[in-house]
Amino acid sequence: ERKCSGEDSEPGRIRLPNSHLKNMESDSLYHLGLDTKTHNLKEMFGDVKFVCMGGTNQRMEAFARFVKKELKVKLPPGADLYDISQHSHRYSMYKVGPVLSVSHGMGSPSLSILMHEILKLVHYAECKDPVFIRIGTSGGVGIPAGSVVVSNGAVNGLVKEELEKYVLGKVVRRSSKMDQELAEEIVQTGRKHLPHLNIVTGKTMCADDFYEGQGRLDGAICTYTEDMKMEYLELLKNHGVVNIEMEATLFASMCSMAGVKGAIVCVTILDRTKGDQVCVSKPTHSEWQERPQQVVAAYIKSALGLLEAA
Amino acid sequence: ERKCSGEDSEPGRIRLPNSHLKNMESDSLYHLGLDTKTHNLKEMFGDVKFVCMGGTNQRMEAFARFVKKELKVKLPPGADLYDISQHSHRYSMYKVGPVLSVSHGMGSPSLSILMHEILKLVHYAECKDPVFIRIGTSGGVGIPAGSVVVSNGAVNGLVKEELEKYVLGKVVRRSSKMDQELAEEIVQTGRKHLPHLNIVTGKTMCADDFYEGQGRLDGAICTYTEDMKMEYLELLKNHGVVNIEMEATLFASMCSMAGVKGAIVCVTILDRTKGDQVCVSKPTHSEWQERPQQVVAAYIKSALGLLEAA
Repeated sequence: ERKCSGEDSEPGRIRLPNSHLKNMESDSLYHLGLDTKTHNLKEMFGDVKFVCMGGTNQRMEAFARFVKKELKVKLPPGADLYDISQHSHRYSMYKVGPVLSVSHGMGSPSLSILMHEILKLVHYAECKDPVFIRIGTSGGVGIPAGSVVVSNGAVNGLVKEELEKYVLGKVVRRSSKMDQELAEEIVQTGRKHLPHLNIVTGKTMCADDFYEGQGRLDGAICTYTEDMKMEYLELLKNHGVVNIEMEATLFASMCSMAGVKGAIVCVTILDRTKGDQVCVSKPTHSEWQERPQQVVAAYIKSALGLLEAA
Repeated sequence: ERKCSGEDSEPGRIRLPNSHLKNMESDSLYHLGLDTKTHNLKEMFGDVKFVCMGGTNQRMEAFARFVKKELKVKLPPGADLYDISQHSHRYSMYKVGPVLSVSHGMGSPSLSILMHEILKLVHYAECKDPVFIRIGTSGGVGIPAGSVVVSNGAVNGLVKEELEKYVLGKVVRRSSKMDQELAEEIVQTGRKHLPHLNIVTGKTMCADDFYEGQGRLDGAICTYTEDMKMEYLELLKNHGVVNIEMEATLFASMCSMAGVKGAIVCVTILDRTKGDQVCVSKPTHSEWQERPQQVVAAYIKSALGLLEAA
């Protein structure tokens, strides 16, 4: 169902599957607070090579500052990073050299809005071959808390490798297959340069809820027994699922539709086969949250030739 | 599928459909940054009568300050409202007398997490008959931009009055019927005390995306023609749909499952039968965003006996 927009066919440029875009005089990226009429997107974002996304504003600001240090990006004296999308009150966006660090909120619908607008942004900015990476937290399934999972597949709650959505009153199903090569590259770079981390690869289950959708017993509503929950987690394990979050199938299917490389790197903050509540202490939680950031920063440095490749 | 938890049967107290809760020693409301072990929820929130929710942190802080003025809530000298959930980095929560004002992010999954944790909060706090109200922005379908819609029904993208979700690997469908009496009360109070506003009642369509899910032509991905889009909007109109947002079916179905009264009050920021892009000026947008807040504040004052009833 893919169509191409954009007049040129420069190699590496994103051609979006929407033939209507080329007829638009201007385009308001409403939830980013940017507009092709008022912002020169090519000048602002033309050099972006890595689009990194994660749930909270705070984490993505922290990631931007971490990358600034890691890539030794220098700003003029008196200048600091600032939140480019602050006026939209929806997402936070920071730019550090070739890296964009953006928050996406929680759940597929929130990420979906961001993906549409960021894909248009890199398209209008004429970025070459940008790589999309989601950095997140997740529940582990049978692996130790604190592990870093690089997803090699994204399945929905029915354990199918697809995204189901409603388009114009009809059910549409799209593949959520992930880029194996990129995942493998991130795993290898991470294992080489951060050998103290437990870096796992496996399938990620994407739920539309933190509670019932993930089989938790501690939500406001729960209609099943503990045995039924454990049976479901066992089923997930048998399908190769190692962690659960809330954005994977949407992310994978949109990357695939738009023809961009995408990866998902999450830390597990508990093992769901051992419980439902997140009980980890604040300092440990903070340290764990940094692990996917370290793995992704190592990959970026390696891809830019700033590290010995894996 | 409802079960009761909580030992007592005091009239008006929320009894949640989860029999596991009564066996928990403590409960961490993780995304709110609250815990039954470390916070006295009854002391903090026992007097809450209205739980108001909306997308952004900024809007819900503004609503809290507006309600503070409207209800003439006095704080001790030197005291100010503060964001009770700031440490969670997920949602913002303000309390003003009997009113809780909380942000829920964008989309059903994000709202779902908040609803689970807020329902548990009012349950543990032993609030009596709390009313839940979502305040939002939306796209209108065939009604003038700037109208305030009080939903009398919530339908999904297939125009069915239900929520579909995956629970333990199975498809579950739940009714998303809304409380007619509460909706009517809000409409009547609004029309009486804010006669200059265009207050409409009708069905709300809940989409899982701002672009394809709402039939927009201006996303990064679009697989249909303008005619097909217009046909879909016509279908929605014929089913009594007057606006589109991204949370209605989830909100309605969770209120109904938990046995609490719920209402949705949104302003329309464009008429989708006339276009897709939000082009309204910033000052107008800000003024329109306040309209649902005014209607809900009028309803709250009326319910508290501070206004002549409608």
